[in-house]
Amino acid sequence: MIRFECDYAEGAHERIIKRLVETNLEQTPGYGKDEYCEKARKVILDLCKNESAEVHFLVGGTQTNATVISATLRPHQGVISADTGHINGHESGAIEATGHKVLAIDNVDGKISAEQVERVYQQHWNDSAHEHLVQPGMVYISHPTETGMLYSKQELEALSKVCRKYSLPLFLDGARLGYALASEKSDVTLSDLANLCDVFYIGGTKVGALFGEAVVITHPMIKKDFRYFIKQKGGMLAKGRLLGIQFETLFEDGLYLSIAKHAVDLALEIKKAFQEKGCTFLYDSNTNQQFPILNNNIIVKLSAKYSFQEWEKIDNHYTAVRFCTSWATKEEDVKMLTQDIINL
Amino acid sequence: MIRFECDYAEGAHERIIKRLVETNLEQTPGYGKDEYCEKARKVILDLCKNESAEVHFLVGGTQTNATVISATLRPHQGVISADTGHINGHESGAIEATGHKVLAIDNVDGKISAEQVERVYQQHWNDSAHEHLVQPGMVYISHPTETGMLYSKQELEALSKVCRKYSLPLFLDGARLGYALASEKSDVTLSDLANLCDVFYIGGTKVGALFGEAVVITHPMIKKDFRYFIKQKGGMLAKGRLLGIQFETLFEDGLYLSIAKHAVDLALEIKKAFQEKGCTFLYDSNTNQQFPILNNNIIVKLSAKYSFQEWEKIDNHYTAVRFCTSWATKEEDVKMLTQDIINL
Amino acid sequence: MIRFECDYAEGAHERIIKRLVETNLEQTPGYGKDEYCEKARKVILDLCKNESAEVHFLVGGTQTNATVISATLRPHQGVISADTGHINGHESGAIEATGHKVLAIDNVDGKISAEQVERVYQQHWNDSAHEHLVQPGMVYISHPTETGMLYSKQELEALSKVCRKYSLPLFLDGARLGYALASEKSDVTLSDLANLCDVFYIGGTKVGALFGEAVVITHPMIKKDFRYFIKQKGGMLAKGRLLGIQFETLFEDGLYLSIAKHAVDLALEIKKAFQEKGCTFLYDSNTNQQFPILNNNIIVKLSAKYSFQEWEKIDNHYTAVRFCTSWATKEEDVKMLTQDIINL
Amino acid sequence: MIRFECDYAEGAHERIIKRLVETNLEQTPGYGKDEYCEKARKVILDLCKNESAEVHFLVGGTQTNATVISATLRPHQGVISADTGHINGHESGAIEATGHKVLAIDNVDGKISAEQVERVYQQHWNDSAHEHLVQPGMVYISHPTETGMLYSKQELEALSKVCRKYSLPLFLDGARLGYALASEKSDVTLSDLANLCDVFYIGGTKVGALFGEAVVITHPMIKKDFRYFIKQKGGMLAKGRLLGIQFETLFEDGLYLSIAKHAVDLALEIKKAFQEKGCTFLYDSNTNQQFPILNNNIIVKLSAKYSFQEWEKIDNHYTAVRFCTSWATKEEDVKMLTQDIINL
Repeated sequence: MIRFECDYAEGAHERIIKRLVETNLEQTPGYGKDEYCEKARKVILDLCKNESAEVHFLVGGTQTNATVISATLRPHQGVISADTGHINGHESGAIEATGHKVLAIDNVDGKISAEQVERVYQQHWNDSAHEHLVQPGMVYISHPTETGMLYSKQELEALSKVCRKYSLPLFLDGARLGYALASEKSDVTLSDLANLCDVFYIGGTKVGALFGEAVVITHPMIKKDFRYFIKQKGGMLAKGRLLGIQFETLFEDGLYLSIAKHAVDLALEIKKAFQEKGCTFLYDSNTNQQFPILNNNIIVKLSAKYSFQEWEKIDNHYTAVRFCTSWATKEEDVKMLTQDIINL
Repeated sequence: MIRFECDYAEGAHERIIKRLVETNLEQTPGYGKDEYCEKARKVILDLCKNESAEVHFLVGGTQTNATVISATLRPHQGVISADTGHINGHESGAIEATGHKVLAIDNVDGKISAEQVERVYQQHWNDSAHEHLVQPGMVYISHPTETGMLYSKQELEALSKVCRKYSLPLFLDGARLGYALASEKSDVTLSDLANLCDVFYIGGTKVGALFGEAVVITHPMIKKDFRYFIKQKGGMLAKGRLLGIQFETLFEDGLYLSIAKHAVDLALEIKKAFQEKGCTFLYDSNTNQQFPILNNNIIVKLSAKYSFQEWEKIDNHYTAVRFCTSWATKEEDVKMLTQDIINL
Repeated sequence: MIRFECDYAEGAHERIIKRLVETNLEQTPGYGKDEYCEKARKVILDLCKNESAEVHFLVGGTQTNATVISATLRPHQGVISADTGHINGHESGAIEATGHKVLAIDNVDGKISAEQVERVYQQHWNDSAHEHLVQPGMVYISHPTETGMLYSKQELEALSKVCRKYSLPLFLDGARLGYALASEKSDVTLSDLANLCDVFYIGGTKVGALFGEAVVITHPMIKKDFRYFIKQKGGMLAKGRLLGIQFETLFEDGLYLSIAKHAVDLALEIKKAFQEKGCTFLYDSNTNQQFPILNNNIIVKLSAKYSFQEWEKIDNHYTAVRFCTSWATKEEDVKMLTQDIINL
Repeated sequence: MIRFECDYAEGAHERIIKRLVETNLEQTPGYGKDEYCEKARKVILDLCKNESAEVHFLVGGTQTNATVISATLRPHQGVISADTGHINGHESGAIEATGHKVLAIDNVDGKISAEQVERVYQQHWNDSAHEHLVQPGMVYISHPTETGMLYSKQELEALSKVCRKYSLPLFLDGARLGYALASEKSDVTLSDLANLCDVFYIGGTKVGALFGEAVVITHPMIKKDFRYFIKQKGGMLAKGRLLGIQFETLFEDGLYLSIAKHAVDLALEIKKAFQEKGCTFLYDSNTNQQFPILNNNIIVKLSAKYSFQEWEKIDNHYTAVRFCTSWATKEEDVKMLTQDIINL
């Protein structure tokens, strides 16, 4: 079985493994206070072109989302999110467990717009009984979205502008950020994100690391005491150097982008094969996730050899599925798959 | 600088590293549903001699404590703990953040007794206004304690008996469990723990793993839906196999106990050296942590070459310190240290 | 200005006031342990024809909803509710503040159906990643709904059946329950509710009392330790007798139903007047709230003399408004209003 | 049975009852936005000599404590309190339920000192691992304390000074505030409290009202959005005017102080009788609670006619008890009691 079902099926990029082996018996202080974390922070800040931002390393995405949101909101506030947002549906209530409502709004391609945020804000404050409602307190977006789609720089600028106008911190979930940055259709850089967001994170788990998410904070209030939050929410790794070593390796000379590009290129080959076969797609993705709509017979046929996810039933005959590539996807596997698609 | 300041200064045992490297590019399902986790669960259950228990793997201790306690208590209940318990002082309020009070009681050597639990229970239920108080809902102990001390089997049996009498699940935090099991002064086995506790965990982070805690649950109510709790509290590692591989390696042929014994043996050599020098100790520990009381001049002298922790000020001239060994501590480092102690 | 804007504009029914005055200087034990509460509980249980149920008195609705839900769910569970449910929109996040997601689903007339609950349940458990989702743990409905509509006995039986099949406690918010019980279109009695629900409450605040909600619990797990929850959530009134006296007065000889009928009768007169004028309605309500759709000019005209709520904009010319009667609404005020409607 | 067991055994002062009856059928807006609340706020602010403070009315003490603390702290912070503080022991975990640890410290007469607060603060920030601890975020005191004792103005000034130095908001629980203000031994006024505290409340429940606590907030951050918190925590009374009317009546011409003085005077007569009988006291209280230490035989004898609370066992023969007077205590009852004491 060749797995295209997710982007976390393998371990880590060989250069990360090599560094972990080399440094294994070194003695370092715990909890992210070692020199590897220090170096990784510096490398990331350089790429962000932002000296005053803070970088923290956490273990996983759910944890990171809950920690950031908990550090940002007061108890009567909620977080605006696309209804398809990961925090709204796939984290077992981790956000609500910290006391906050997810204020879910309609999405287009998994995205929300500055106009929607403006509307939610106005609607809240124009309600004479607004004290009986959950106050919008921040905005959550993912880039790429759950469905592999990208915000343009212009869209992010508009969101950032409305968020700053209304003091709603903008939080970008970058669990798959590499696959956005590496897409040719993207005009957004790390430095743009550091400018436009109040807090965002760079996903390691799905882009070459064993695990790990690097949170970049520019908003002073969120920075304040953030390490307490990491500890309280269970995200402070005792051997924090494991995170430092991985992110240093990923960012010191462009590895992160190059392995992400590898994944995106292979995803586009899969896309092309399905296109040539006349398939339509649920989303017109240019990142590492592809969502062709397939006849159920085809799905059965492909499932004999490949694992991939059934995403959404279209009708009695057709289903949208997800093929996912990653930094670790092998070219020969994709070649075999595309050949099999063409021969269908 | 030679570090005796903690037991998580290095990476992982070389056999674990080897297995991680070997399996790195295998594709496995995520979130602990891979075969490595399956095997590790089986090996641990065999050692526990308990077929109906459940084993779950989490990343770190704070997370594990918050997850287990949150899955065990109803909202009006609190957890009885020694005032020195890790959950009472060193987790940034992680337990309270899940809504529960830590009902802290006096400790002896970091331990609490069945009699104390009985007393807390009776005191609560004999209070005519008990509905205005936090109801004791479970009991938390650590083995070894924060201060390196051990519960005897008899003490655990007494605690277990009173806990079952009053339906108070007994939770044992085994972040350093290896160093207890490996101590010659201990008469407690994994199988005893599975019999006497309702839930306990086997610490990996401090005993040979990169990270990881294996939770063993025997209580039906705590088992129920436990994976939701792991996910919600941010402890469900995407690449769960990393935990499976580590625990399989630690337990398949006794590695866990043998590396823990290494640490305890070296700790006892340090203890002996201080004893021969006429030092007294804050706690008479037989595990990997030693707490000699030293003259402040001596502390200054030793600090030039070794790092260790100042634990408690005794008076203006003396301070109790902590020397900590681990699975990774080198014999030559301990030899040098003991020689230096003798030459003081 | 004559107020039809809500059903809590006045104090309490004169018989309640009389009893409060008469008993004012009596000395009673606190916190609901007095004989008035005891008597009120008995009277209510008799009407419910359920001897094993428990009755508790709380101060207000938000508090009651948060307390009941918190006592019913485990932390990974959420509460299924109509998207228009009070807990979903109008309680400043009180439910989420106890850690739980409101699983909002589509409504018809503010109601949800057994089929929908079945579907939510099946969808959850059929998802292979259900541990990453919030588990449905109970069902919340209001009767009458936020929009004045009624569940039929048959609908409640169907809901109750599916809830029991799947062990999802059924919770009925009866903040305006009197106005349902007193409606000629209703075929549901208190005894039916005690049979079909696991927990429900009888609203006092909006039906003749100064304040107060009487919670009736039949589910053993929700009963357990419920007074701790009342105290913890701030709903345990020191002078609990105020609640006992009010509910005893409301229920000892049918006052509750008769004053509710007064309100419903007057509401139907208002409805009739608007109908005769050719108005359509947002909801075809047979309880104390009426939702005519009015031309904006008419709204301006009526607003000079009467206060009522703008509920929903229909288009640029029409708006649905809410006229609310209560136990305290004066017949002459309604007569004047209906005359003014006819003369429009 | 004559009750000295608590200060909430009766209803409300007759003037309050009279005003509630008079205004019963008036129509007012809900949720504290009526003119009675407005007037009551103004009267209280005048007495506080503070124009920029905010006054909010809540129903009960537990609710008020949880609401204020939740509005003040960020999630990683705890509240410093005497170990005897009401929030530490008698609120069923209401504070922890909002996610916060109560940082309990030793008390003297139920009080804590500026020096202690300084020490807790220093100890926290001097700990190199402070991020693993709960950060002290505010200070909670009661005046009078749970044990009837008083802070002097000097003590409050010292506390206020250290709190402001370290940005720790000072919160004073005045559930029995009247009995402090009315004591001849007190040199503290409402205006002093408004100057020295960041938030405090004036208890109505125990001093003449049916229920109700008036929160006075001077700290800008706690003011911000406070009504959302009241609503979320279930303390926003629909018929808010009930609170406004009561507090207006209590404060418009000194009723609050005069009825409190009545209670204190009677308490001191009881104190004197026990003193003359040679009794010692657990606390040397000058407010409405008295704590004589009595021989158990005497307790049995007095219990035949009077109810009072056993507070603390002293030894096998002696127990400290609590006699509590209130605004409603009758002079003839106290006369009878003091006579009975003398005749013992």
